[in-house]
Amino acid sequence: MSEGCPVPETRVLAVASHVVSGYVGNKIAVFSMQSLGCDVAALNTVQYSYRQWTGSRVSAQEITDLYRGLKQSYLDDFDMMLSGYVPGAPALEAVGQIGLELKRKAKGKPGSFFWVLDPVMGDNGNLYVAPDVVPVYKSLVHHADLVLPNQFEAELLSDTKITDVSALANAIQIMHERYRIPHIIITSVSLPHPDHQEGSGPTLSVVGSTMTSDSRARAFKIVFPAIDCYFSGTGDMFAALMLVRMREAVWEHDQKIRRRKQEQGQNSDRDSNDILMTRDAWLSDDSVDALDLPLARAAEKVLASMHEVLTKTAENMQGAIEKVKREVAAAASEEGLVDGVKEGTDGSVSKEEAEKKMMHLLKSKAAELRLVRHLDSLRFPKVQFKATRLEV
Amino acid sequence: MSEGCPVPETRVLAVASHVVSGYVGNKIAVFSMQSLGCDVAALNTVQYSYRQWTGSRVSAQEITDLYRGLKQSYLDDFDMMLSGYVPGAPALEAVGQIGLELKRKAKGKPGSFFWVLDPVMGDNGNLYVAPDVVPVYKSLVHHADLVLPNQFEAELLSDTKITDVSALANAIQIMHERYRIPHIIITSVSLPHPDHQEGSGPTLSVVGSTMTSDSRARAFKIVFPAIDCYFSGTGDMFAALMLVRMREAVWEHDQKIRRRKQEQGQNSDRDSNDILMTRDAWLSDDSVDALDLPLARAAEKVLASMHEVLTKTAENMQGAIEKVKREVAAAASEEGLVDGVKEGTDGSVSKEEAEKKMMHLLKSKAAELRLVRHLDSLRFPKVQFKATRLEV
Repeated sequence: MSEGCPVPETRVLAVASHVVSGYVGNKIAVFSMQSLGCDVAALNTVQYSYRQWTGSRVSAQEITDLYRGLKQSYLDDFDMMLSGYVPGAPALEAVGQIGLELKRKAKGKPGSFFWVLDPVMGDNGNLYVAPDVVPVYKSLVHHADLVLPNQFEAELLSDTKITDVSALANAIQIMHERYRIPHIIITSVSLPHPDHQEGSGPTLSVVGSTMTSDSRARAFKIVFPAIDCYFSGTGDMFAALMLVRMREAVWEHDQKIRRRKQEQGQNSDRDSNDILMTRDAWLSDDSVDALDLPLARAAEKVLASMHEVLTKTAENMQGAIEKVKREVAAAASEEGLVDGVKEGTDGSVSKEEAEKKMMHLLKSKAAELRLVRHLDSLRFPKVQFKATRLEV
Repeated sequence: MSEGCPVPETRVLAVASHVVSGYVGNKIAVFSMQSLGCDVAALNTVQYSYRQWTGSRVSAQEITDLYRGLKQSYLDDFDMMLSGYVPGAPALEAVGQIGLELKRKAKGKPGSFFWVLDPVMGDNGNLYVAPDVVPVYKSLVHHADLVLPNQFEAELLSDTKITDVSALANAIQIMHERYRIPHIIITSVSLPHPDHQEGSGPTLSVVGSTMTSDSRARAFKIVFPAIDCYFSGTGDMFAALMLVRMREAVWEHDQKIRRRKQEQGQNSDRDSNDILMTRDAWLSDDSVDALDLPLARAAEKVLASMHEVLTKTAENMQGAIEKVKREVAAAASEEGLVDGVKEGTDGSVSKEEAEKKMMHLLKSKAAELRLVRHLDSLRFPKVQFKATRLEV
């Protein structure tokens, strides 16, 4: 393998939004996967300046055309796909068709294509896509290999309310059964009575499960300290890193098997039934415990990277806010206060409102994840938080 | 500074094309700069599948709107700008307006904004943009800090024919005088009588110059072995790395001055006249020799990275071609030969033509620069080829 790359050659199709400035959607996902050695084809579903301010969407037809363009150039040889935010049901359907086509193409070559689907629908009880997007996601989850809903999205997919750990376990079981979805990670689980307290501040959990051959859940959780700050793009970064680390964990598992067989003088050929990478959805044997799943190993590494980058971002934040405040003050003294904010609105906004908006923008900017300054946290994270059993 | 980042916090606006698959334009430039720690805002002027097959352009108006969106969110605080391929004169003019506005904003704060302009017009005697793009570039070069024409583009900008070293030196002198452009790098110089032979295969040169206060050229060359293979995206990668390494070289120069002053017990404050980063266009003193320019240090590092990545790409290429051949053969046996190529044409193409086109596509794919597998070549290149005097 090439220097420092945790995975063998991996060609990924990443379908999500593009922002000019900032780190959300494909902007953060593509860099995360590239920095870990993946060859990423980035199909951008929108181009916005920043969040949803100005810019334009790519139509369902354009998404289909871009994919056809890849096919015509023999560039549809993807090992994995990551699909994230897609605006609107027609565009999501177009993205779904791409996933389905890649799945079909891989039929007869089990494990040769793996689809990570981030069902971006909402958060904290609020839907932020059109309601007709929900049934499209529900139809696509049947075909994905790994889904990464947050707690609210898991509620939508399972049609249950997640109020405690046993409801959470139930939601996971429902999703495995209903959609036959092999791997699930529920990100940022926050329950009223945290199931794990170490006496040192608030925590969050990630809960994961890989199903058995008869669709039984094998669930684990990883508890980590919550950082009191709102960051954008964490879900996209999490999904992108999970894609890479899942492949790494499966690859490492298989390398171990190969080495052991070699030591025992056995043939270690690719068709061996012990090799996960040639199994449909890379599913572990039923005998494998939740805590020994490749999914658990992957999630531990991803959380380590996330925690390092978030901590460093938070440490830098106060200074960053002060810096932008000074810059804006300097600009204001030249051009008249908060002109930048007023421009583009109907002009009737009050000075207070404009200042409030300005501070909000400055804080958002200071909360941008500092990935590019902490590449080693992506590449060589130190695992601090280990998977434990999800006690129901 | 953060781990392994060669530059202080650097916020870059990169304006160029986006391809879903492959490594050209912003796709290669953004990753190159991010992997060296830059916070890059990526404004994509097109989204194509791959080269110019399918996809769409972003209009001049959309480019302007995207930039306005950044301003409204206080996200126009750029330290540097890289502008590359822009399709058509109106869009290029829109990009030029952004550069001019950022220049204006930086007036009174010398050195606080640095514009790297890659005047993408053609190569090897062929114009591959509309003829009305040429005068737009000529008007913009006046305002840039560093331009990176290839040999043909240098001919267009200087209105001279570059047939030998003295014509090359002349073209550089003309550009410095006509446009008052401070820094020039001419990439991939290939002259009929190579001015440097080490008896070991063909070579290429990069020729650079930083002008003096009276617009005299200070030219150097760096000679390196040519690799017999056509790669796409090398110009874009070169420009992106030059942007970062130029800032690094100037920063290192300034740090050395600061340390020396501190040792001598002098005040090392920012306004010192010895500090390049607070001078317009980071221009070195007239007394500085061509071989001691930050531009020369930067170009040496960039060429080291380029040579490592190109060498590794070429080494991998034959294997990559064999691999895709096998894949296509497998696909053909299922779906009927070369269907993928035929689709989208008028259907009248002969089998030979289709096969020829297929082989061309496969070779292009195998020639994609393998940046993501060789991150350390970007981050920690070993300088092998040093700047020498351009002897006229």
